[in-house]
Amino acid sequence: MDNITLKMLAKELNLSTAAISKALRDSHEISTHTKQRVQELASRLNYIPNAYAGSLRRRKSKTIAVVLPEVADSFFSLAINGIEAIAEQKGYHVLIYLTHENFSREQAILKDFQSGRVDGVLMSLTAETASYQHVCDLHAKDIPLVFFDRVCEEINTAKITTDDFESGYKATQHLIDCGCKKIALLSISNYLAISNRRLDGYRQALKDNNIKNSPINIYCGNDNAVNYRFIQRIMSDKERPDGIVATVEKLTTDVYLVCKELQLSIPQDLKIVSFSNLSSADILNPSLTTITQPAFEMGKAAAVILFKALEKKSFTLRDENYTMPSELIIRGSTVLQK
Amino acid sequence: MDNITLKMLAKELNLSTAAISKALRDSHEISTHTKQRVQELASRLNYIPNAYAGSLRRRKSKTIAVVLPEVADSFFSLAINGIEAIAEQKGYHVLIYLTHENFSREQAILKDFQSGRVDGVLMSLTAETASYQHVCDLHAKDIPLVFFDRVCEEINTAKITTDDFESGYKATQHLIDCGCKKIALLSISNYLAISNRRLDGYRQALKDNNIKNSPINIYCGNDNAVNYRFIQRIMSDKERPDGIVATVEKLTTDVYLVCKELQLSIPQDLKIVSFSNLSSADILNPSLTTITQPAFEMGKAAAVILFKALEKKSFTLRDENYTMPSELIIRGSTVLQK
Repeated sequence: MDNITLKMLAKELNLSTAAISKALRDSHEISTHTKQRVQELASRLNYIPNAYAGSLRRRKSKTIAVVLPEVADSFFSLAINGIEAIAEQKGYHVLIYLTHENFSREQAILKDFQSGRVDGVLMSLTAETASYQHVCDLHAKDIPLVFFDRVCEEINTAKITTDDFESGYKATQHLIDCGCKKIALLSISNYLAISNRRLDGYRQALKDNNIKNSPINIYCGNDNAVNYRFIQRIMSDKERPDGIVATVEKLTTDVYLVCKELQLSIPQDLKIVSFSNLSSADILNPSLTTITQPAFEMGKAAAVILFKALEKKSFTLRDENYTMPSELIIRGSTVLQK
Repeated sequence: MDNITLKMLAKELNLSTAAISKALRDSHEISTHTKQRVQELASRLNYIPNAYAGSLRRRKSKTIAVVLPEVADSFFSLAINGIEAIAEQKGYHVLIYLTHENFSREQAILKDFQSGRVDGVLMSLTAETASYQHVCDLHAKDIPLVFFDRVCEEINTAKITTDDFESGYKATQHLIDCGCKKIALLSISNYLAISNRRLDGYRQALKDNNIKNSPINIYCGNDNAVNYRFIQRIMSDKERPDGIVATVEKLTTDVYLVCKELQLSIPQDLKIVSFSNLSSADILNPSLTTITQPAFEMGKAAAVILFKALEKKSFTLRDENYTMPSELIIRGSTVLQK
């Protein structure tokens, strides 16, 4: 079936295309009777206004973009739900773009946005992102931009994070309270602000407890097989850690599998706390002690701020940080359960 | 900063906008020297062609859409990776749209595509989708469309599935081989073709083994709290099943938690096989026996076919089914591990 055009509607009803266009926009210049005729025919023939033509005129695509490293992480999938809950109320579509932790993909996606494809952007940086020209370029185009979780501190806009320093501290202190003496922190980025805040909290907890030989900040990459071998090597060493803070959910499975392979018991031989929103934390063997972020609420909060900027010309996104608290949930990977 | 327009480039270089436009498109009508001047200035000023204007002319957005029920399911997050691996090679952006298993969202998203926002669509239906007019309407607009996993059998286009009948049969037969006599199948849809194929396989296995009183096809919904109470009720009954085939990954956590609460042991009191691609299947308590779909490969295959249709005018997506085999991986939820 051919696309139904304004011209076809006009011909069918013996009206001008301008009149059709006005009728469809509910203009006061057109009589109620004519409007009804036009709308009825448009509906019957399934007439769809051309989005690009409309957008070119109005510069409104009624869509927002969410740029994320990955969705195979329960934090991000819950945050998306929070974002969509708000966008649905506002009648906007949400487009999800994945960077797969790849900096050049992030650059390409942001470049694409400069052409006006979306009205606003919510984003969380890749673990590789260490320079911000691509973000500056987008920001300069006056496309509203809000960061959540993995924020860019250099850009003057709103940012939603959790209390990453406090959470890093809390996780480490908990391991110390459970008797750990050699605590490693597993991270996937040396650049991300949230990784550095969590590392700072970990360091501070070690310092406050006079633990000097422990600091092992272990940098893991984006390749799962490499991470596995890396954790295997660390846990095979006779100076192996007795406690681990995993700052990323996906590293947890590797730690569990390595312990199984090396016949190390959790929590007797190794205690682990993971930053994670996994719904299966309770049914792991053993159940997993987590720092649980308010993922859904963070997504909602980021979207609410973005829509303020989209709806009010006078509202400017400023350099503001909104920090929401995370929660330590103690389970079997740090405390033996009966 | 204002958007740099063709006009601004033209003024700066004292050329016509038509000449600028041709130079940027590398037209043979423009001298190499002029092209260099134009391209150098465009690059320096970070000139971005307006996507909508370009698309209006070419009707090519260089994007494909993936329409999915959710991403908090490891099958879909792996399938996305497969799709993106192909799209990246082709230089296309991938937009992910989530329906959250909601039929009216699926309708709204497909309606939006009719305006030409994307060049092609890959999709997996919601559990609620029982009528297909919205899919027919999109299909009639000649926007290439490929289904994967949750396919629409009524539409004449390419479909990628796994061997759902065989997998339902294999899962049920495995439970019977392990000694189960009362086997329940948990499903989230009475409409989806894949759900019905899995149910048919389950029924056939029961029939082939002369198990008559067992057939309990249990329909769960999209509300996790309701599902939990439902499974709780079934497992509290004295006629409770001794085997479960979970056709959806997310129901597994509920079954495990209910068993924990009711102090039922897996696999002694209940054996469970789940359709799942969870990377944590190995570290659950107990580890989970799965029907594992070739998720990444299915995403890739769907994308490869879609790009054939996008690249060759002569290639038509026909009513073809590509079936890829799933695998039964036996673990601790059906067979006691030492």
